[in-house]
Amino acid sequence: MDAVDVIRTKRDGGRLSDEQIDWFIRTYTEGGVADEQAAALLMAIVWRGMEDDELARWAAAMLASGERLDLSAVGRPTVDKHSTGGVGDKVSLILSPLIAECGAAMPQLSGRGLGHTGGTLDKMEAIPGWSPWLEPADMVRVLQDIGCVICAAGAGLAPADRKLYALRDVTATVESIPLIASSIMSKKIAEGTEALVLDVKVGTGAFMPDVGSARQLAETMVRLGEAHGVRTSALLTAMDTPLGNSAGNGLEVIESLEVLAGRGPADVVEVTVALAREMLTLAGLDADPAAVLAGGAVLERFRAMVRAQGGDPDAPLPEAVERWTVDAPATGFVQRLDARAVGIAAWRLGAGRERKEDPVSASAGVVWFARPGDEVEEGRPLFELHADEPARFEGALQALASAVTIGREPPGPAPLVIDRIGP
Amino acid sequence: MDAVDVIRTKRDGGRLSDEQIDWFIRTYTEGGVADEQAAALLMAIVWRGMEDDELARWAAAMLASGERLDLSAVGRPTVDKHSTGGVGDKVSLILSPLIAECGAAMPQLSGRGLGHTGGTLDKMEAIPGWSPWLEPADMVRVLQDIGCVICAAGAGLAPADRKLYALRDVTATVESIPLIASSIMSKKIAEGTEALVLDVKVGTGAFMPDVGSARQLAETMVRLGEAHGVRTSALLTAMDTPLGNSAGNGLEVIESLEVLAGRGPADVVEVTVALAREMLTLAGLDADPAAVLAGGAVLERFRAMVRAQGGDPDAPLPEAVERWTVDAPATGFVQRLDARAVGIAAWRLGAGRERKEDPVSASAGVVWFARPGDEVEEGRPLFELHADEPARFEGALQALASAVTIGREPPGPAPLVIDRIGP
Repeated sequence: MDAVDVIRTKRDGGRLSDEQIDWFIRTYTEGGVADEQAAALLMAIVWRGMEDDELARWAAAMLASGERLDLSAVGRPTVDKHSTGGVGDKVSLILSPLIAECGAAMPQLSGRGLGHTGGTLDKMEAIPGWSPWLEPADMVRVLQDIGCVICAAGAGLAPADRKLYALRDVTATVESIPLIASSIMSKKIAEGTEALVLDVKVGTGAFMPDVGSARQLAETMVRLGEAHGVRTSALLTAMDTPLGNSAGNGLEVIESLEVLAGRGPADVVEVTVALAREMLTLAGLDADPAAVLAGGAVLERFRAMVRAQGGDPDAPLPEAVERWTVDAPATGFVQRLDARAVGIAAWRLGAGRERKEDPVSASAGVVWFARPGDEVEEGRPLFELHADEPARFEGALQALASAVTIGREPPGPAPLVIDRIGP
Repeated sequence: MDAVDVIRTKRDGGRLSDEQIDWFIRTYTEGGVADEQAAALLMAIVWRGMEDDELARWAAAMLASGERLDLSAVGRPTVDKHSTGGVGDKVSLILSPLIAECGAAMPQLSGRGLGHTGGTLDKMEAIPGWSPWLEPADMVRVLQDIGCVICAAGAGLAPADRKLYALRDVTATVESIPLIASSIMSKKIAEGTEALVLDVKVGTGAFMPDVGSARQLAETMVRLGEAHGVRTSALLTAMDTPLGNSAGNGLEVIESLEVLAGRGPADVVEVTVALAREMLTLAGLDADPAAVLAGGAVLERFRAMVRAQGGDPDAPLPEAVERWTVDAPATGFVQRLDARAVGIAAWRLGAGRERKEDPVSASAGVVWFARPGDEVEEGRPLFELHADEPARFEGALQALASAVTIGREPPGPAPLVIDRIGP
């Protein structure tokens, strides 16, 4: 087997054979295929794509590069959620204890943010003392005791994906449906969950700007999950407007605590409940997540989950030293609040990172006081910016300069859940 | 400037800006862009191609990565030839002293072979004592004294091409018209020649199997030459049948000496004279190369060129220890003698290399006793195989198994020179 032959096959539009896929993934992970050869193959995959069964084999080879967790000892149906990433998307923090409260277990191995969308681990780490690192045995124990866990994937899970993802990041080969789908699904399948619901975001603040490509990604991932025995479905949800009222690590924890207490922004509640319904259906449970969430008891389960990983749920969250208020430039109805612009502002304020080794601020971010459909008055506060240093404001203000449209009429209704993709 | 942005531009089908091209080539050559990033960009170029002015800038940046030789002291018009590579193509050995004999100077910086086509330096190195290494000042002196030189390009000439070519070789990104054209032309322009004739081979034994892609490559290179002030034209010549009667380093020197003495195979003479005519026209000279070659005086100039680089033209050439004769399987007319099969046989016998660091044999190769149109008799010798070890024969015999078609009628005529591409 020769790396050049494998690259040539894909370059010329052919289907990689099972042997080629297994050999390439295994040998690359072990260091026997050079990064430049893998980079050429990745670009050829961006170009030529992959057939369904070819991609299933590719994901299987990535899965086979590491271990697959065994959650059979958990004693409850297991079901997880994965979001392709949005602005202000704090749903995982609420969903984990909600699903547990409804009787299933949610074994969430999560990641950090890169670019303008936040990462669940970054948000949880704003809580003093909380650590994302759990051994697999401890993860099973927390799932048994509490029913939910949010933690970092260990090095043993899909190491091929770890290496390929780092390479894609520096070679402009991130944007490929088969590569995105196999990266996400190899990690989620390795996690050992029995069922999985994908939240595929669509819109300016999302990775997939249009419904067509989002649907294609969702269908590809659902097929991959099914091919590996994981019951999988997907919701396409809107990400033209950021979720809730804040973007930033600690700020989103504060907002999540509001939702967990039965209050909080309606859009966050709506997306969370829609995903919970889908997850509970796949788990074979018929609890009513809307009623459970409104009851407020989920908050105590979240606090237990935080404590189980060394966090202090009573410790005050870090607060930003520097604040800046942006006033509404006109009176009228908010017609548009651009998710991407808000995400970039939060990123520039310090909430996100440019490279994966960069630190993030726990307190930086953006709070907004109006959403599309809300009325605003000229000169009244529209955004509050939080940062650790005043030098951060200028870039954020630039990003927000054209983030909002105010008009005389309210905008038409925009559904939050766009579509459902079943197996 | 960021490598990922440059890759993304080409991946998405855009034109690289002049600044992007200059920065990428310069920074990659200096080591500031990683091999995996260059590999991803190369595959994106294979995919998306390059516009004419974009490619001219790319070649200019490669040229600017090193020095450009100054041949103004030579005192004769300078004109070179480059062949895209064929089987049994020993034309450079004959053309160099022929062009010099006709009054021009031919400053040939040449390369080694890779795969099934031979390299001019490998052939010349079969001559005892001959060395391809000349300092630029010595190259100019030999051109002044003798009018022709065949030598290796020093490390200072188009170092970007050297690095990119090695990378293309291991990443299946060799087969791209803009990448081939810029690689060839950056070296040839750096060489300092005033004029250049390209011999673009077409057929089974060539890099370009069909006339359409060969013409496209030729046109691209002619435009690149003109854009850099080098008078450039191209001939498309047939490479379905190997040239002459032998393929192999020392064997081709022996055959060249025959042609230089005014004898030798008609097809080699025809291609050599056609190229010489084209070159002399570009050099503004009106000598008759056919008459000059037939006169036999060119041989002495070849011997002088060999001596100028330490070679002994009177020393016997190395002979293979092992021989194997293949007899004609039937009586009739040779209708087809496949260039690619013969090239692979010579390669497997030891005349070629698989990786650029491999050594080659000076004596290994294939001699054939009949060409398309010739009559053969069953059981009479058709091929003679030369090798240093008997273990080499099996692979060569496999390659030759279906190399020849014998029929009852002679084949139709096949022109050797297919087309001419002028500026």
